[in-house]
Amino acid sequence: MKIGVLLVGLKIPENIGFIARVMKNFGFSELYLYNCNVTEQSYITAAHAKDILENAVILNSFDEMLDHTNMLVGTTGVTAKAQERYIRKPIFSPEELRRFLEGKKNDRVAIAFGREDYGLFDEELERCHMIVTIPTNPEYPVMNVSHAVAVILYELSKGKFETEEKVYVTARDIENLVANFERLMQTVWYPKHRINRTVIALRRIFGRSLITKRELTVLHGIVTKTITYVEKLKKELERK
Amino acid sequence: MKIGVLLVGLKIPENIGFIARVMKNFGFSELYLYNCNVTEQSYITAAHAKDILENAVILNSFDEMLDHTNMLVGTTGVTAKAQERYIRKPIFSPEELRRFLEGKKNDRVAIAFGREDYGLFDEELERCHMIVTIPTNPEYPVMNVSHAVAVILYELSKGKFETEEKVYVTARDIENLVANFERLMQTVWYPKHRINRTVIALRRIFGRSLITKRELTVLHGIVTKTITYVEKLKKELERK
Repeated sequence: MKIGVLLVGLKIPENIGFIARVMKNFGFSELYLYNCNVTEQSYITAAHAKDILENAVILNSFDEMLDHTNMLVGTTGVTAKAQERYIRKPIFSPEELRRFLEGKKNDRVAIAFGREDYGLFDEELERCHMIVTIPTNPEYPVMNVSHAVAVILYELSKGKFETEEKVYVTARDIENLVANFERLMQTVWYPKHRINRTVIALRRIFGRSLITKRELTVLHGIVTKTITYVEKLKKELERK
Repeated sequence: MKIGVLLVGLKIPENIGFIARVMKNFGFSELYLYNCNVTEQSYITAAHAKDILENAVILNSFDEMLDHTNMLVGTTGVTAKAQERYIRKPIFSPEELRRFLEGKKNDRVAIAFGREDYGLFDEELERCHMIVTIPTNPEYPVMNVSHAVAVILYELSKGKFETEEKVYVTARDIENLVANFERLMQTVWYPKHRINRTVIALRRIFGRSLITKRELTVLHGIVTKTITYVEKLKKELERK
């Protein structure tokens, strides 16, 4: 699956640079520009994604995009709920788009984003095979175009870059940790009638906080060290 | 669940405005600022979210945030895979954060975003209860801060605003549509040996394109109208 971005009629040069940057952040590189105002400012906001701007394909018409893609996806911030506008229906969320594309490994897909003020014109949306909108607050649905690109590319890049896999401890690990705390309480002659409820509280706190293996080691460390130290002091006292 | 945004040491006034706007886009309103450079420019990029800037709470220290929240989430673009840096581990994705928060309806959570150049300092990340990073391209992981806010708030707002529910047609509806096309082919004396493979092609095309009820009506419309018109012509011819 190759996913390209088509920008249509962007007037603010900074936005084009911001979009190049966010494309690179999420591992996309195919940029198509139709009627966009690229200036030095665009290269500044592109930061380390200047190569994407440099390699952008300049189109002479919106329709030219049809030769570069298998499927053209239009975006809109206006979902036209009131009037039944067939041009904007059916409308998909970025998540639905991602799921739809998941099975289609060999396709080329382009996602078109429109002007800062008007978005894509109706005649452009008409050419698209799928219409996507980001679910937003009805009180203020219109996003800055570069932020809309960020959100959609983030959604489409899911699964592409790994976050570390967290290894959580098992319930048994938590039980052993709680037992270690119990041993500490006995060592310092913590009142017996309080030990039981403290054990339960500790079990609940640790149990619901998704402790990793690494964090478990840290917790055992402090408890075991304290017990050892207290036992040592006790023995020194016995000797005297 | 009340989710607030804490901005720390942002120097570029435009970014603060962009963040206010995207907060409103996704239905968040609690903004906290520590050491941020808010100017007239911020109000320009905030567009219709000036109220969020106006109502922002100004903090005198990072630690002051602890009084305003139950859980403080730090963000970082640097995941420190090479060196084992306990300050940035364990690290969660925005999706994992959303899932973690889903059950916690009554909590107040604040998400902290740091400086354009350095992000949050280590001593600030140390104060946080959870560290989140957006999975990005290792070749260029560092996002513009307002785009990072957009992505995280988008993820956390999932399910909050509805996109329209699409009513897809059933396999039976598709079968009826294909049958209608078959009737058309018979009406125009389409070669019999081609009808079968055309029927299969149509079934496959319509079957995998997730047709909505609305689109089905449109397709039936053109086929039925064509059949009716052809039948009418045939009768007129018979009469002559």
